[in-house]
Amino acid sequence: MNSIKQNTQKKMIIDTDPGIDDAMAILLAFQSPELNVIGLTTTFGNVPTAVATRNALHLCELAGKEDVPVAQGLLTTLRGVVKLRVADFVHGSDGLGNTNPPEPKQRPIDLSGPEFLVAKVQEFPGEVTVVALGPLTNIAKALELDSNFPKKVKDIFILGGAFFVNGNVNPAAEANIFGDPEAADMVFTCGANITVIGINITHQVVMTGREIEELGKCNSKFGKYLCKALPFYYDYHLRSYNTDAIYLHDPTTVVAAIDPSLLTYAEGVVRVQQEGLCRGLTLFNSTTKNFPRGEVVWY
Amino acid sequence: MNSIKQNTQKKMIIDTDPGIDDAMAILLAFQSPELNVIGLTTTFGNVPTAVATRNALHLCELAGKEDVPVAQGLLTTLRGVVKLRVADFVHGSDGLGNTNPPEPKQRPIDLSGPEFLVAKVQEFPGEVTVVALGPLTNIAKALELDSNFPKKVKDIFILGGAFFVNGNVNPAAEANIFGDPEAADMVFTCGANITVIGINITHQVVMTGREIEELGKCNSKFGKYLCKALPFYYDYHLRSYNTDAIYLHDPTTVVAAIDPSLLTYAEGVVRVQQEGLCRGLTLFNSTTKNFPRGEVVWY
Repeated sequence: MNSIKQNTQKKMIIDTDPGIDDAMAILLAFQSPELNVIGLTTTFGNVPTAVATRNALHLCELAGKEDVPVAQGLLTTLRGVVKLRVADFVHGSDGLGNTNPPEPKQRPIDLSGPEFLVAKVQEFPGEVTVVALGPLTNIAKALELDSNFPKKVKDIFILGGAFFVNGNVNPAAEANIFGDPEAADMVFTCGANITVIGINITHQVVMTGREIEELGKCNSKFGKYLCKALPFYYDYHLRSYNTDAIYLHDPTTVVAAIDPSLLTYAEGVVRVQQEGLCRGLTLFNSTTKNFPRGEVVWY
Repeated sequence: MNSIKQNTQKKMIIDTDPGIDDAMAILLAFQSPELNVIGLTTTFGNVPTAVATRNALHLCELAGKEDVPVAQGLLTTLRGVVKLRVADFVHGSDGLGNTNPPEPKQRPIDLSGPEFLVAKVQEFPGEVTVVALGPLTNIAKALELDSNFPKKVKDIFILGGAFFVNGNVNPAAEANIFGDPEAADMVFTCGANITVIGINITHQVVMTGREIEELGKCNSKFGKYLCKALPFYYDYHLRSYNTDAIYLHDPTTVVAAIDPSLLTYAEGVVRVQQEGLCRGLTLFNSTTKNFPRGEVVWY
């Protein structure tokens, strides 16, 4: 089935908090001949980190990818906040639409998520693409562990932020960035080659109720699997956005990492507001000509 | 010349920091038969408040409107900050393109700007339109002096903010809001009938270099006057925005106050970020259905 040779595949680590659209993204990545998913690291957001780990292992088993290592990430924010915002109202308390997935047989590896990230960019310098689908805690921690991480990682694709649109947690902030604003600002200013897909983009990439129905009728193991989890996610969208469609946040980000030419981009600097009303707001400055990537000369 | 009877004219107070585009806006208001400009109050921003007062008196004399009272506003921000950002690089050190205007013969009235605002909405409840062309210090002070100001004022048209676009002071903030973010947040949440014209709007309303030339050739006293001041403003735009045109911020706001139907609007709540990187950012929330005007239920 795989016509692209392993040595031309992109090595990808997915940092993830599955999450229904994370599950879509992970299965998409496993199915993509362009990709070699060399590991999953887990974070909080849609679910607590421990549940994310359970779900990541479950998805690997579902996909016959038991060989893909799962490294559990931080249980708290970078600064140690333990009381986390968990979007169970979007993804169900099990993160997979209350489908009650079986306990996985595999265990996470001994390395933590950030340690695994650091080890893999060390092993394959300039070759590893990181796709970050949750709060940026693990990536920021990797930066703390290895200040050369930005030079060693090939690129980072981030699902997060709301650029020149309202957020989805509150009018200022998008959920992943709001989950750990300190970590996010560290990552955005680290100097790595970063592509960020905000909800200004992903709200344009939808799957309609009818398309979900059609997916369920396909003769596809993963399609049928996802269609058990998707109704919960769909109901949230119908209730919250009054739309007969779901947003494909995480799959869009994997798609961008597979083929960046499918989207258009603006180049600039992103910073994250830390304090007050707009905590978690992603500020984009398109005027980059006078200062290097990641640096902002502010009035 | 005036075919509209005085009693159908809108009573308007212009809070202003002239300022080249303020001068355009003030002369426009004086020339508009729809308006009865019942006073000018002065603020800092384009110039320090004392210079704004001098220029306001000068413009009244130029227009033969010596009878229009000029009330000097606060010399500092609402919280007493004395070191103010003054945009002399946009408007010249005299605020009028370094045209060195003559000292006015008239004097400001004894009432302060905020006291004058409070007195006039008391005298004409439900009849006074306030057009705010600078930082919102005087309006906020009027709210402190009279908690019923929002009920007594007819409406407030504000030139300020950058909605879903970058600011012009820095990537987060527009100059008028940045000038006094505390005052701005007070005004936006006071419950008055407020229309705000951000730079997302005024950057669409331009006068080209050629149009400025044509204005200078017109047989118009005010046109010729403005064309002496406009080159300085034009040079700033050419240098900073690389555009052969000037932004008509303040005149656009007066036009909106004359005939709101000339623009389109979104209804919602505006809040102003106070702290950090995004101090002065105007956050717009279009979802107003669940809470009254000026109130925000935040996550």
